[in-house]
Amino acid sequence: MKRISGFSKMSKAEKVAWLAKYFATANPVDVVREFASFAHANVETQKVFDGISENTLTNFYLPYGVAPNVTVNDRVYAVPMVIEESSVVAAAAAGAKFWSERGGIRAEVVSTVKEGQVHFRWEGTEPEKLERFFDAVKSSLLEGVTHLTENMAKRGGGIVDLALLDAGDIEPGLWQLKAQFETCNAMGANFINSVLEEFARLLQQEAKAWPEFKGREREVEVIMAILSNYTPQCRVKAWVECPVEDLGGFKGGMSARTFARRFVTAIKIAEGDPYRAATHNKGIFNGIDAVILATGNDFRAIEACGHAYASRNGQYGSLSHAEITEDDRLRFTLDLPLAVGTVGGLTTLHPLAKRSLEILGHPSATELMEIIAATGLMQNFSAIRSLVTTGIQYGHMRMHLTNILNHFGATDTEAEKALAFFADKTVSFRSVREYLGQLRGGEGEVEVAR
Amino acid sequence: MKRISGFSKMSKAEKVAWLAKYFATANPVDVVREFASFAHANVETQKVFDGISENTLTNFYLPYGVAPNVTVNDRVYAVPMVIEESSVVAAAAAGAKFWSERGGIRAEVVSTVKEGQVHFRWEGTEPEKLERFFDAVKSSLLEGVTHLTENMAKRGGGIVDLALLDAGDIEPGLWQLKAQFETCNAMGANFINSVLEEFARLLQQEAKAWPEFKGREREVEVIMAILSNYTPQCRVKAWVECPVEDLGGFKGGMSARTFARRFVTAIKIAEGDPYRAATHNKGIFNGIDAVILATGNDFRAIEACGHAYASRNGQYGSLSHAEITEDDRLRFTLDLPLAVGTVGGLTTLHPLAKRSLEILGHPSATELMEIIAATGLMQNFSAIRSLVTTGIQYGHMRMHLTNILNHFGATDTEAEKALAFFADKTVSFRSVREYLGQLRGGEGEVEVAR
Repeated sequence: MKRISGFSKMSKAEKVAWLAKYFATANPVDVVREFASFAHANVETQKVFDGISENTLTNFYLPYGVAPNVTVNDRVYAVPMVIEESSVVAAAAAGAKFWSERGGIRAEVVSTVKEGQVHFRWEGTEPEKLERFFDAVKSSLLEGVTHLTENMAKRGGGIVDLALLDAGDIEPGLWQLKAQFETCNAMGANFINSVLEEFARLLQQEAKAWPEFKGREREVEVIMAILSNYTPQCRVKAWVECPVEDLGGFKGGMSARTFARRFVTAIKIAEGDPYRAATHNKGIFNGIDAVILATGNDFRAIEACGHAYASRNGQYGSLSHAEITEDDRLRFTLDLPLAVGTVGGLTTLHPLAKRSLEILGHPSATELMEIIAATGLMQNFSAIRSLVTTGIQYGHMRMHLTNILNHFGATDTEAEKALAFFADKTVSFRSVREYLGQLRGGEGEVEVAR
Repeated sequence: MKRISGFSKMSKAEKVAWLAKYFATANPVDVVREFASFAHANVETQKVFDGISENTLTNFYLPYGVAPNVTVNDRVYAVPMVIEESSVVAAAAAGAKFWSERGGIRAEVVSTVKEGQVHFRWEGTEPEKLERFFDAVKSSLLEGVTHLTENMAKRGGGIVDLALLDAGDIEPGLWQLKAQFETCNAMGANFINSVLEEFARLLQQEAKAWPEFKGREREVEVIMAILSNYTPQCRVKAWVECPVEDLGGFKGGMSARTFARRFVTAIKIAEGDPYRAATHNKGIFNGIDAVILATGNDFRAIEACGHAYASRNGQYGSLSHAEITEDDRLRFTLDLPLAVGTVGGLTTLHPLAKRSLEILGHPSATELMEIIAATGLMQNFSAIRSLVTTGIQYGHMRMHLTNILNHFGATDTEAEKALAFFADKTVSFRSVREYLGQLRGGEGEVEVAR
């Protein structure tokens, strides 16, 4: 049966057997064997991975690499990156090297304040009454969560602000408590959610007992209490700059001045055209998400926040900006919110996430924000550099060629010949297959490896 | 030296040794051993992963699981999901089960048309002249790329439209060629980029030879040619609906009517408040990205496109919508662009991505869009269901508890006891550590596993 009840309670072996039987009918045994081949040899380590998610059957591999020479605020990092797309690590590394020879990257955290909301309905007819109530009980609310905040307070964090907002424009009677948090080196999602749920409970309790309220005014209906992943205040800026004349080394021999002008125009297009901006920012997140993954952070949170920020002025636009300054320097900046943690969650649980943080020198959340923004900036620089000089396909297809060669199980000798042959030609699955076919002296099909 | 030259040309062993020596000084040998432990036992398979990205040192594991019972257009799928966040697979599975008992999920692809742009500068003073030129050479441009499109044409795809747009609002003199593509079962990025670069070359060539142009009018300066990841036309809708009275089985015994009302309000808040919308959509992408990863697609492209789409009306808002219809049914819809492929790229290269597509019954790109949207919808349903009934922490912390227990190396017996103990208590690293300390009969520190 393709429908099943009680799946989550089955053992891993039972789950795999069921899946193989009903959904991989051509070769059920292969599935079992393949899934086992991706398991970690150490049973205890594997147990950790199995416990991270639910209905886990095996591990999905993503390449773990590093971009060396990432120089941020005069410190040199080898930045761990986890990414399934070719060219990303190479681009970050190339950008990092380029700028490490031109003063390195600067980065600065604007703030690390995060937000959460308790959305509720209150159907009284006099808003001032609710406002008076809130002003009066605010300190009780804050006191009522100290058992949840005391640990964070010891580390210098806690609740920064608590406000009442009228959300009646969404639906009459809707309000929200908006809380702001400092969560130090933790991303803080669980902390924030626990505090918000306690605020919600206390709010209802206080409203019931508030002498000024009559009848249904005493009823606060909490719709939901949850952190916001949109954290425009928890923000970092990273930038590079150098005299235009110091730019150089471009493929095809483009002059520094032409490059700078074209680079600034390319960024301007991304600022003004949402169709271009999406791809432009996607490139930035290629670099950012790779570090987010490698350090055990949550890329969906980072993406949602970054893209929402990119649309804050009413039209979706570029997260990076460029200009040629009055003293003739190219200045290139990335400005985006990034809520990350270096303690808690997967950062301590995933062995390689933990290792990544060691390789980065056990950074604070603030330092990690700077490293990640710097990597995103480098990624963006290299992508735009390719686009305005050789075109994106030139470098990308060379990387892609390696993948296609592996796909067809090319030997080292074949790969070497192919790299030379395709240096000035268009790479496609078809052209590589044909070329390998010729190399192997036949007209027949080239078989896919494995 | 923490700075290095020629890193990409070093062997993997040399790279790891360098990294361990300079960036993991506390225990360089551990790093070498750990990275090796995450390698695949089969050398050829490992080679494939090494070739996917650059400077690769080992594999980063992400749990690979499935959500069974996902019923889309009457077909039952077990949906492979790759995700590092707890609760996501469980939530998708729970939502899928709930709706499989209420008619299943419906999904429909609106269109699969994708877009690309050639951005260029043309500094003539008479725009009509450029427009006449474009009308005249359009067919030559299209003919000039047939060597690149013939294979795609055989599969029913190719270029759908080619237009000239004035981008002078961004900067005087800027224009773009906007091309639309049908790429069948391929995501098509390489195909689109190759065609665009050829368009760019041909455009410059034709302009040089166009008799009506004089002097600098003959000069088309191509700034860049690249696909757009913003594909609002390549879109899918997924929805569920049932009579309000058929809803039920909510924790805490909430009535169907109360649930439906609260559910719709929660969605309305996400439609109207960007702070809530970011988190709401983040939840949708938890489900979507997990399938995107499992099937070898590119989650940065999906995220950039989806979030840009969420801001298309000038304010960032929810991608899902809910209503109680006139005939008293709860209708819940997800509407978003999704450009995915089931051939090419990683879908054929990554053994488990390939396996995922087999488990999904070798879907077309269109069918995969429907499956992915359905999974995102289920994810969102379960998240909102939790939020408006028990609160998010109830389920999430139970999942989190498993992780913390693994972190402290709890035995199966300890884990069982802890699950019972924390059934009605707040889970935190601290409380679990204290509880385990008591279980183990001491007051001392509970050690972290491994």
